[in-house]
Amino acid sequence: MGSQGEEENMAAWLLGVNNLKILPFKLPPLGPHDARIRMKAVGICGSDVHYLKEMKLADFVVTEPMVIGHECAGVVEEVGTEVKHLVPGDRVAIEPGISCWRCNLCKEGRYNLCPEMKFFATPPVHGSLANQIVHPADLCFKLPENVSLEEGAMCEPLSVGVHACRRANVGQETNVLVMGAGPIGLVTLLAARAFGSPRIVIVDVDDHRLSVAKQLGADETVKVSTNVNDVGAEVGLIKAAMGASVDIALDCAGFSKTMSTALGATCSGGKVCLVGMGHTEMTVPLTPAAVREVDVVGIFRYKNTWPLCIEFLQSGKIDVKPLITHRFGFSQKEIEDAFETSARGGAAIKVMFNL
Amino acid sequence: MGSQGEEENMAAWLLGVNNLKILPFKLPPLGPHDARIRMKAVGICGSDVHYLKEMKLADFVVTEPMVIGHECAGVVEEVGTEVKHLVPGDRVAIEPGISCWRCNLCKEGRYNLCPEMKFFATPPVHGSLANQIVHPADLCFKLPENVSLEEGAMCEPLSVGVHACRRANVGQETNVLVMGAGPIGLVTLLAARAFGSPRIVIVDVDDHRLSVAKQLGADETVKVSTNVNDVGAEVGLIKAAMGASVDIALDCAGFSKTMSTALGATCSGGKVCLVGMGHTEMTVPLTPAAVREVDVVGIFRYKNTWPLCIEFLQSGKIDVKPLITHRFGFSQKEIEDAFETSARGGAAIKVMFNL
Amino acid sequence: MGSQGEEENMAAWLLGVNNLKILPFKLPPLGPHDARIRMKAVGICGSDVHYLKEMKLADFVVTEPMVIGHECAGVVEEVGTEVKHLVPGDRVAIEPGISCWRCNLCKEGRYNLCPEMKFFATPPVHGSLANQIVHPADLCFKLPENVSLEEGAMCEPLSVGVHACRRANVGQETNVLVMGAGPIGLVTLLAARAFGSPRIVIVDVDDHRLSVAKQLGADETVKVSTNVNDVGAEVGLIKAAMGASVDIALDCAGFSKTMSTALGATCSGGKVCLVGMGHTEMTVPLTPAAVREVDVVGIFRYKNTWPLCIEFLQSGKIDVKPLITHRFGFSQKEIEDAFETSARGGAAIKVMFNL
Amino acid sequence: MGSQGEEENMAAWLLGVNNLKILPFKLPPLGPHDARIRMKAVGICGSDVHYLKEMKLADFVVTEPMVIGHECAGVVEEVGTEVKHLVPGDRVAIEPGISCWRCNLCKEGRYNLCPEMKFFATPPVHGSLANQIVHPADLCFKLPENVSLEEGAMCEPLSVGVHACRRANVGQETNVLVMGAGPIGLVTLLAARAFGSPRIVIVDVDDHRLSVAKQLGADETVKVSTNVNDVGAEVGLIKAAMGASVDIALDCAGFSKTMSTALGATCSGGKVCLVGMGHTEMTVPLTPAAVREVDVVGIFRYKNTWPLCIEFLQSGKIDVKPLITHRFGFSQKEIEDAFETSARGGAAIKVMFNL
Repeated sequence: MGSQGEEENMAAWLLGVNNLKILPFKLPPLGPHDARIRMKAVGICGSDVHYLKEMKLADFVVTEPMVIGHECAGVVEEVGTEVKHLVPGDRVAIEPGISCWRCNLCKEGRYNLCPEMKFFATPPVHGSLANQIVHPADLCFKLPENVSLEEGAMCEPLSVGVHACRRANVGQETNVLVMGAGPIGLVTLLAARAFGSPRIVIVDVDDHRLSVAKQLGADETVKVSTNVNDVGAEVGLIKAAMGASVDIALDCAGFSKTMSTALGATCSGGKVCLVGMGHTEMTVPLTPAAVREVDVVGIFRYKNTWPLCIEFLQSGKIDVKPLITHRFGFSQKEIEDAFETSARGGAAIKVMFNL
Repeated sequence: MGSQGEEENMAAWLLGVNNLKILPFKLPPLGPHDARIRMKAVGICGSDVHYLKEMKLADFVVTEPMVIGHECAGVVEEVGTEVKHLVPGDRVAIEPGISCWRCNLCKEGRYNLCPEMKFFATPPVHGSLANQIVHPADLCFKLPENVSLEEGAMCEPLSVGVHACRRANVGQETNVLVMGAGPIGLVTLLAARAFGSPRIVIVDVDDHRLSVAKQLGADETVKVSTNVNDVGAEVGLIKAAMGASVDIALDCAGFSKTMSTALGATCSGGKVCLVGMGHTEMTVPLTPAAVREVDVVGIFRYKNTWPLCIEFLQSGKIDVKPLITHRFGFSQKEIEDAFETSARGGAAIKVMFNL
Repeated sequence: MGSQGEEENMAAWLLGVNNLKILPFKLPPLGPHDARIRMKAVGICGSDVHYLKEMKLADFVVTEPMVIGHECAGVVEEVGTEVKHLVPGDRVAIEPGISCWRCNLCKEGRYNLCPEMKFFATPPVHGSLANQIVHPADLCFKLPENVSLEEGAMCEPLSVGVHACRRANVGQETNVLVMGAGPIGLVTLLAARAFGSPRIVIVDVDDHRLSVAKQLGADETVKVSTNVNDVGAEVGLIKAAMGASVDIALDCAGFSKTMSTALGATCSGGKVCLVGMGHTEMTVPLTPAAVREVDVVGIFRYKNTWPLCIEFLQSGKIDVKPLITHRFGFSQKEIEDAFETSARGGAAIKVMFNL
Repeated sequence: MGSQGEEENMAAWLLGVNNLKILPFKLPPLGPHDARIRMKAVGICGSDVHYLKEMKLADFVVTEPMVIGHECAGVVEEVGTEVKHLVPGDRVAIEPGISCWRCNLCKEGRYNLCPEMKFFATPPVHGSLANQIVHPADLCFKLPENVSLEEGAMCEPLSVGVHACRRANVGQETNVLVMGAGPIGLVTLLAARAFGSPRIVIVDVDDHRLSVAKQLGADETVKVSTNVNDVGAEVGLIKAAMGASVDIALDCAGFSKTMSTALGATCSGGKVCLVGMGHTEMTVPLTPAAVREVDVVGIFRYKNTWPLCIEFLQSGKIDVKPLITHRFGFSQKEIEDAFETSARGGAAIKVMFNL
């Protein structure tokens, strides 16, 4: 295997709107607690597509060329002098965010909220769609033999569902409603099942997505409209489909309508977790939910999720392989095709690069 | 002292819109676990005024004559055969709601959410503005010598603030923002202080209310407008007034604007508790709060709050006496004046009947 | 089916040490919230045997003839006027304890700790090994079609394991050590698996018990001695068998030695739950565990467990049928044989009456 | 003010049993996130005395000369390039432990349990009884004007009490029993009061200590014996002194007898926190406590306590000044006298160096 010096490290650089180029990417020096990883599998996330189309996402703006990509796994090439849990050749899944560990939020165990977070492909930090990267070794999690590198890369989106389930306290005693059957809705469905939810109903506007959700293990599906006047009727359909209390709703769409439906369907004392980010400002019946003590929690990324994701994959409690619908190599032509495929949606759930 | 048979028990009956009459009220038989209480102090709540003006509140409609009143304290006249913790002559504060203790919510300790709750003056259940009432003895809490019957009646509104503080986890380490300095905002302020909050900022549109709040112990006050376009600027004023993180916001107004301000001011990882019920549907920036993991919790009444309220009153951690601004006797003329005084607002915070 | 009036109701009365007789048992009147149940399956618990052998258990002494039995399920014969969720013919599993719902502990959701608890076959309260009983209907839980009455009766011992798992926070992220593979150790093992524990090691002194535990799903078994000097070495064996952190230990034996082993094996920040009651006073290395913040929690019976147990049985997450090793009818001869079989232990795990 | 180069930095070196010498101590280089602090106040802890007398404590052995001291505050002399919250001249209290932030425990917010912790004066890490030290700036907490450097140094022992109160959930609704009125018992008493405990009973064998505790705010004191046979009677005395439920016991002694008393006195559903470390192995009635669901939690040092301690000192909720009974300068003669004074106990609570 080539060492750092023998080859030129290449990466996919976001240069402007719809302008993605494979160009050289100089690696930083390897610190004592770092690992150098040869990337093997990198997935495309909706946020990657968003940056490519608009050069920004929420408050984050790409002002200088930036390497894209953050759902990834690879093989250890070299480790720093202080790294004890990894050796070259280990296959690892990579947690993308480096937090400061000096602020209150980090010290209290909520490092995902760290204001100093350095996160792959969130400007101005470079991402991981590259031949090699250097990353803190404690964020590189060794994969067991029966978990592939592609599955390792899927730990990133799966982490979103896992964090949502933790924040909402999904478990053996909570029936779950999932609003939205897109990529995040589907990983959240898988996570809720793995957390032991006895009954899961999933809702979407699209028949194909619902049929995928059904195959992935949803107990019931409910097709809904985009008309906000249908909320009352659709809450009725959802309750009928559940046939029991809706204890937790995980809104993976994040529109006024989906949130209104989630709030209305959830039982007294239940929880709604806002996962998707469709609308910024929402018009929702918050008071009627509040007086039933239906709590609303949100999520930002995830924390401490990789070990659990790997356990779910290793034990077979979760199978993410059906989510990987398209694969591409790492050439200029293929990265363009891959992003186009991901942007088009349709049958594409997760588009994966094999490097 | 008169026994049940020697006098006719009178109560304030809500007969129609703006039609409140003192009429006889036949007491139910005293069960083995009940107490018969001679009412001594009954406060007027905003919900009482609302019923008087509209004969309904949210989904609750008054369709038959109903005795009004639910903030109350009195003296034990008689106890059932199984009651051991009370004797005639004991002064007691009264928790108004009788839950079923058979549903899941009751058994899990969330009895305030019981769907079978029988609550004073929530139709069709009679209230407590009467000479005497019969009530479960376990909902009658003995007052210590240094707590007056009026203070005992104040345990009911104070319980709302206490429950909000518990739901939001107010404590020694959480700076608190209170939105709204009306009666509920003020008891919530007092509760937050008693729960140990090191720094409390309170916000209102009214100078007089803010000056009362300041006297009651708020660290800083911020006067705001009702213009929703001012949210951003007012969040800035609030943060400046706090001079530290706003860890918890308690929205005691419950309008789109107050909630938007609360969500915007609260720090990452903090909590917003919706206490007031100004708007049913709200237009609020829920997503930007959710991605900072600012949780939104609501409250419905309270549970297990009387012992703590009494402890706060007994120890002097809370002084509710300044909130009692007006007092009336129990005659037809006076009950009409009292409700008018309460409805007018202005300098009236709590209007109290002395029976 | 015979109505209450047409037959004489018979029950198994504990009259003295080793003196158990089937005699008439007059049913109390049916209250508006009660159900009358024809018993179909009643299991024998270790505590039943203990009462039979010694007429006492811990602080509870049998001073008057008492009907024995508390693990039970049956068929509804009649319901009170206020009962809505049951009709005659429904098959139900029965939660044995009636708490007061007036004390603080009940109101805070910890009704299992109620000092006024009336519990089947805990003197002076009669048990349920009878043709019929009358019981609060909210403590009678309807069984789904695919759960048998015997399985319904097993909800009682299973509830102990479920409550232990809840108290210790067993879940998808916690490897579990179970000390003791007797009947309670085995139901606890089943519960821990159903709560999602990824890896479970079980420990006992008996090869047969360990082989049963292995068949029931333990990942690894460790045979240990009764010699307290072996604790250090056995902690080593347990850690090796786990091959990962022991996050939670559930001590279903409750001896100084088992508790010392549990404390020593559990990782920093973990939990030990004391389930068994072998020793009253224990000599254990509490300080070394405390400075690693290994918490020790105990359990008393259970609360709110029947719905979850039934869900586990219905979904197949737990199969209790292999635990039912012996069955007896309800005759004088058979009840004597049944208790003797249970007392002998050996291959007998759960001895069940079919009435 | 002298810079690092202009003077020789001196420290108190532990060279052997009862052999403490002031000798030069070379400072490490200042990293970008570090601060160089001129020590002004350093307290003597029982563990310091223990190391001096025995060169070991629990599993920690002093095998090479080590600078002693870890309760400290000082003035910032210089900060690293990345430090933004401090400037030279700032007065700071210092948290002594540097954790790894790479292990699971750190990432989950339990950094006090980090196995890689580097802690002042825990071998082989040097302590802080020196003219100057270099320390991570995020562990240096700026003192407000009304908090002295000596009070700043007291944040360290006070943190033990604060962490115990957090672990045991001390608050407005929990009466507290403190076992032991030594230095740690006293700071724990102060912390419990600041956490809002309505009623605190403290227990000791020594009249003087109890009278100090009374002056510091204990509601009642109970004098006990060291005879383990007195546990039952003393539990009775404690309950009588409390006159209400003992919700939480904080055992600041840590002997079999004190722990037995704590377990016996605490109410059903309560908590016992083991703070002191008198005995390693304990003989205690654990089962009777467990069946009342009295949980036992331990503590190891503290985490995230400095900001709260400073808030308590600044607001006057806690006054630690009465605990500082003796003061010494930083000369060879005085450090010997100071340690002798601390070791002698008696009227000495906290012995403080002013450098």
